[in-house]
Parts: sequence; C-alpha cells; structure tokens
Amino acid sequence: MESAPVRVGMLGCGNVGAALLILINEQHAAVARRTGLALEVGAVAVRDPGRDRNVPVDPGLFTDDPASVVANPEIDVVVEVMGGIDPAHRLVVEALERGKPVVTANKELLASHGPELYALAEGAGVDLLFEAAVAGAIPIMRLLRESLAGEPITRVMGIVNGTTNFILSRMAEEAMPYGEALAEAQRLGYAEADPTADVEGIDAAAKAAIMASLAFGVRVTADDVYREGISSITSEDIEFAGRLDHCIKLLAIAERRDVGDGPNIGVRVHPAMVPLDHPLASVRDSFNAVFVEGEAVGELMFYGRGAGGRPTASAVLGDLINAAGNLRRSHGARIGNLQPAVVTPIEELESAYYLEVEVDDRPGVLSRVAAVFGDHDVSIRSMEQEGLGVEARLIFITHAARERDLRATLEGLDGLDAVRSVGSMLRVVGD
Amino acid sequence: MESAPVRVGMLGCGNVGAALLILINEQHAAVARRTGLALEVGAVAVRDPGRDRNVPVDPGLFTDDPASVVANPEIDVVVEVMGGIDPAHRLVVEALERGKPVVTANKELLASHGPELYALAEGAGVDLLFEAAVAGAIPIMRLLRESLAGEPITRVMGIVNGTTNFILSRMAEEAMPYGEALAEAQRLGYAEADPTADVEGIDAAAKAAIMASLAFGVRVTADDVYREGISSITSEDIEFAGRLDHCIKLLAIAERRDVGDGPNIGVRVHPAMVPLDHPLASVRDSFNAVFVEGEAVGELMFYGRGAGGRPTASAVLGDLINAAGNLRRSHGARIGNLQPAVVTPIEELESAYYLEVEVDDRPGVLSRVAAVFGDHDVSIRSMEQEGLGVEARLIFITHAARERDLRATLEGLDGLDAVRSVGSMLRVVGD
Repeated sequence: MESAPVRVGMLGCGNVGAALLILINEQHAAVARRTGLALEVGAVAVRDPGRDRNVPVDPGLFTDDPASVVANPEIDVVVEVMGGIDPAHRLVVEALERGKPVVTANKELLASHGPELYALAEGAGVDLLFEAAVAGAIPIMRLLRESLAGEPITRVMGIVNGTTNFILSRMAEEAMPYGEALAEAQRLGYAEADPTADVEGIDAAAKAAIMASLAFGVRVTADDVYREGISSITSEDIEFAGRLDHCIKLLAIAERRDVGDGPNIGVRVHPAMVPLDHPLASVRDSFNAVFVEGEAVGELMFYGRGAGGRPTASAVLGDLINAAGNLRRSHGARIGNLQPAVVTPIEELESAYYLEVEVDDRPGVLSRVAAVFGDHDVSIRSMEQEGLGVEARLIFITHAARERDLRATLEGLDGLDAVRSVGSMLRVVGD
Repeated sequence: MESAPVRVGMLGCGNVGAALLILINEQHAAVARRTGLALEVGAVAVRDPGRDRNVPVDPGLFTDDPASVVANPEIDVVVEVMGGIDPAHRLVVEALERGKPVVTANKELLASHGPELYALAEGAGVDLLFEAAVAGAIPIMRLLRESLAGEPITRVMGIVNGTTNFILSRMAEEAMPYGEALAEAQRLGYAEADPTADVEGIDAAAKAAIMASLAFGVRVTADDVYREGISSITSEDIEFAGRLDHCIKLLAIAERRDVGDGPNIGVRVHPAMVPLDHPLASVRDSFNAVFVEGEAVGELMFYGRGAGGRPTASAVLGDLINAAGNLRRSHGARIGNLQPAVVTPIEELESAYYLEVEVDDRPGVLSRVAAVFGDHDVSIRSMEQEGLGVEARLIFITHAARERDLRATLEGLDGLDAVRSVGSMLRVVGD
C-alpha cells in the first residue's frame, strides 16, 4: 500500500511545529495504514539550529536558512509555522511558484495577503491549506471549502478568540471584573502581556476575513472587517445580560446580503448578546466554536480547542495528509476563483440592539425617550425600568434596526435634557 | 473554468432526492464558479415515473428501472437515496464494479454491508461517500476520514437520533412522561407510527457501527453494537438526573481500548447521564451532535440537523461535488484498508454508574448495601438518601467500574432482604 515517502519541509519549530514533529512520528504507521502515505521530515528551518528541542528529528535536518528548505528539490510539501508576515509571505509565494503545496497556520498572513495567495495557488494548481489558521483544531476551513461547497450559506458566526471567551466566561461565572479576569488569563498563559490583539478583536478580525472569503467565495482582507473589542464590557453589562437570559460573547460574523448585483456581504467583530439557549452560549472558557447558517443545511455548529500546540498540530497534520495525498494524485484542493465583494459598511447592517439609558425619574421622560426611537425608525421590542432614587435606568431591546438609525437614536438620546447618560449598547444576535 | 458536465444518476426520489434535485438546480452556477464542475441530472429511477414530483427535472429522465441507470454509460456518478437493503445493495455493488462513484444516504445498508462495500470501493479506486447516513447535515464522515486522518482518536460519542433526543428534551423541559413525549413526537412527524427503530436504539446502533469503522479504521457492523433504548426511562430518572446536575441523552459511543494486540474497541448505544456543563447536554430537541475526543486534538463537537429533506440533501450535494471532482481528477477518496477489530463486549467496558435502590428504612441497611458494592470491587463516589416513610431511596453514583462487576452488584443487591427494589441503572458519561 505504501508509496514513496512524501518529504516535508518545515519553516519554524515553535509550540505548534514541535507538537507536529512529535505527532508525525507517533502516527506514522497509522497514517500509512489508513492513507497509504509515508510522511518523512526532510528539513526544519529555525533561528537557532543548535538548540535542543526534544523532538524526534535527526539534528542534522535543522537549518537556519528557510529559503533553502523551500528551494530544496527533495522537499515535496512546505509547512509554514513560523508566523508573522515577513519572511513568511515571501517563502510561501516562492514555494507555490515552485509548485510545492503549502500548509500554514498563519492567520495574519492570510488575513492580509490571502486573496493574492489563494489566486497564486489556484493558478499553479497546488494546495494552499490553512485549517489551523482559524479556530485551531476545528476543521472549519475544510467544511467551508468542501462539505459546504454546494450550500447556500447565509451567515457564519464564530467565537474564534479563546482569550476573550475565557475572560467573558470568568466575568459571567465568577462575577469577576474585566481587569481581574484579564489578569487571570495572563497568569494562565491564555493572554499575552500586551493583550491588545486579543481584547480589541484584531485576532478575531483576521479570522473573520478568512472565514468570509471561504464561506462566500469573495476577496476579503482584515481591513474590510468592522471591529470592536471587549475592553469596555463591564460587570454590569454581563449582569443585565444574564437577567435577560443572555450572555455576552465576542463574535466574528460574516453574512451574505441579498441586495444589488454580485456578492454583497457584511463582516464584523464585536461583542454581542446571545440568548442562553443558543448553542454558542454553551461555549465556555477558552473553547472556540463556529456557527454556520445555510438555506438548505439549517444550523450547524463546530466546537473545539482554538489554540494550543497539540490541537493546532492535529489540524496541521490533517492538512499535511490532504496535501500529500493530492500530490501523489497530482491535483490540488480547490478554493475556486474568488470574486471581488461589496462589503457593506456596519452603518447599513441590521441587528437587534440592547441599550441601557439613565434618565431623570420624572413623569413624561419615558415618552420623550421613546419618541427619539420612533423618530429614527427604531422599534422597541421590550423595555424594563429600574428606579435608582432621583434617576431611573431604562433597559431597551429593539427589533432589528439599521446601525445608522440606531446611532442617530443614540445621538438623539444624548441631546435630551432628561437623559443623564447613554450607557452600554450591545448588538443582540441569535434571538 | 467549466469542464464537461458530470452526469448524475439518481436511485430514488423521496424527500431527500427531491430536495437534492432542487438544490442542484438552485446552486448550479455557484457550484460551477467555486469548483469548476457542471452537475447535470441524467436519470432518476423511481417506482412510479408518471407521478408529478414538482422537481426541476425533465419528466423524460424518470424511469422505473434502477438497473438501467447504473448500467447507462452516460451516467458518471450514482446517488442512492432509495433506502433499504434490497435492491440498494445490489445496485451499489454494480455501480462500484463498473467503476462509478456512489454517494449514498443509506445507513442501514452501510451498517450491515459497509465493510464489504468500503473494500469494493477501495479495490476499484472509486469513491463511496455517505455523509448523509450519519447525523444528517453534520459532515462528521469527512471529518473522520480526512481532517482527523492523522489524529489518535480515543472516543466518539454521538447524539445521532433526533427522535429520541426530542423525546428526552420534552421529558426534561416540560416534565412530560415518556408516553406523552413520544405521542408529541409522532404528532410532529419526528417519530414513526411504529417507533421501535428509534426508541430502542436500532437506528443509533447502525450509525455507531459506521462511526466506529471510520474513527478507528476497523470492520464493525450493527451486530457488533451493544444496544439499549430509552423506552424504560421514567420521569423520575430525569428528575433525579436533574437534581444531580445531569441530563439523560441516548448516546452512540465508539471507543478505543488500549489492550491486547491490534485494534480493540468498544461500541454501544444506551441512555447515559451527562453533566449539564458538558457540550452534549446543550443539544436539545431533534438536533444531533457528535463529540470526538483525541489525544492531540482534545475535544471537538459537531452539531446540526440530523434529518429532514433539505439538510440531508445539502450533505449529499457536498459528497456529490467531492465525487464529481475526484472523477475529473481520476482518483478516489480513500477510506484505507479497514482492519478486523476485536469488539469488547459490554461486560468488559468501564463506566461510572447511577443506581437507584429502594430499601427498608432501618439501622444497618446502608452498611449491608455498601458491602455488596465492595464485594464486587465497585467503589461508591457519592450517595444520597431520601426517607419515604418505612422505606428509603438510596441514590448512588459510582466511580468507574467494569459492567460485569456492576451487574454482579445489582444481583447481589437483589438478593438482600432489606432491598425492596433496584430501580434505574444509568451509565454516567462525560464527568
């Protein structure tokens, strides 16, 4: 059954790379039996080839010259797990141009240069696979590319950042303030010393761009993604959400909009209120999940580890087996030709909203507040009032409204004498 | 981009078949753009070709001779959605022997003749794809075959029967007795007039056999699967489970056992107590989900619609695109050579258990009951006692124990004078 070995060239050997080398070694026989493929590591490019890495690889295979790995005619498949844009971008382009399939876990690279790289791979007829770049161990890329290739997908919503999900879970379950939950995430190694990329949604926006490209077959980069993070979410927001049987999740949302000619999509990352009986609400701690809605398939959800060396390496190995198999069979895994997309700005997208407003507690105020909503075509679904002495807190949930109209409503409320402050605004998703 | 059309021959045109024909028609342009494939329906075999089916297909393509569809040299790919063993078995064998890829949604056929058909497809180098046979719209087959091809999977646990999950959800959420929940499922069309195949776990056992084959690369048929249904689950069981922060789910479980030489597996279907914070507990109503545990990947869960014409047709279309693509590229989707498996009988498998025992409420009884557990090496994790006048109810949760020992414990308890009755026994999973 076993054919000639497929030689793998690795660029990088950090957490994921080391876990991959161990997994390739452990699973060699099982992979050969089930797929007929013999994977063999041919070279590993690292910064310091002399360092002991405790991986089952001949030390002579380490090199500090990644370009030599890509150029080596003995190398059949390139695995890029070095991260960052440069030199990863140049090396991946070089490999594809040489007709070598590439497996990468580099979301940053794909979110900025994805459309260019997909087209290059498509043109060269070689695989560019990147399961590990979005939602770690969850095989969402393959599902979007293959299982759902014929499905009219309408929306993809993901909890794709484990750090922020951990923080929001702690805030909800332990009634912890944001700062304390962040500190715990940092202590446990879930958050970096500078947590900006996670908590401001930058990491999630990169993944949103990749998911939108594959779900809708369009060219989207991270710059197209509207983005809000979780750093302004308060314990009170979480408490009010709970009272309304909702939780707060940072969601990456890509959706098809049936307007105009050609593909028109919305793509955004922001905290959202999610009803507690929605499957996404059950995704806790640092887990990830992607919820897919399609016209035929209905609702699907995929849940798993979003990060970590071994889970991510498992996803890379799945891609590597796929690429190696396609190599032996001389064809590539197709992405298809991506179309340019009209990305609808957030102002034109529709959502239901949660709004918290503090007002003077005197007669006539509620009617004036409600008039502001009506003036801007925002219809109120429910309202709760809570007295706080001389002031009162109003909690509104609206019906679906345009973001532009909601923002105008916020401005209108700000201009009312009786309104002391407009507190949190959160989009409500999944009701 | 578009190559010559791929001609599809359909065997059967019921719910799923009709939904597939509509979906192929609707998605024709999108599929061509994304995959370069032009799918064209070439023939549809049905019992009554004269009947109006309201599908976008030339009426002249209907025939009552399924063998002619398989034999037709104009037909490139065969889609079997007729169900049942005969004549589906003969037709699928015939198609594979002619070198035609087959897409089927027929779990009954695969659960009884799967290993034979997989070997036939493998030998002929053609695709046999059957995503829709297990958990409907959830692409679990592709994940096991491809994404997780290199993963050391340890256990797969599925809620793979929507009818029983609906019944158990109603019993838990509306405190409905079993009979009433079953009647509602029948009223809503979720359960058949004769519900045996669903409620006794026969349907789930067929799916367990298929999942075990793919997860562990071994030959397993439905006859190898230990099976218990839900018809004896009472409202009290559900209530006690709830008090212990568990719910009751009918699970199909396939697990690897690290004993002996060669692959040794356990495969079973039975109701199980699942902790409320386990992802499977959030799977409600008629939804399905499959939970996968692997050494590298950690925990994964896939959630979606288990049945219904459109969701199932979406899964069939995904397979059809895959098979059509492989046809153009002249290679098949590999299952690999399945190994014979040692299937461990249920008596040797380990689990934690929930036991409810009614005893005389007098001194010394608990110690005699506990001694029976100890005599059979079953260790008690927790016990709750509830007085009921002259008798008392004891609720035990055990540590992991062998089924054989647990059964001996039950017999021992039955033989005690002070024990009035041994009530429910449920396996506890996911703690």
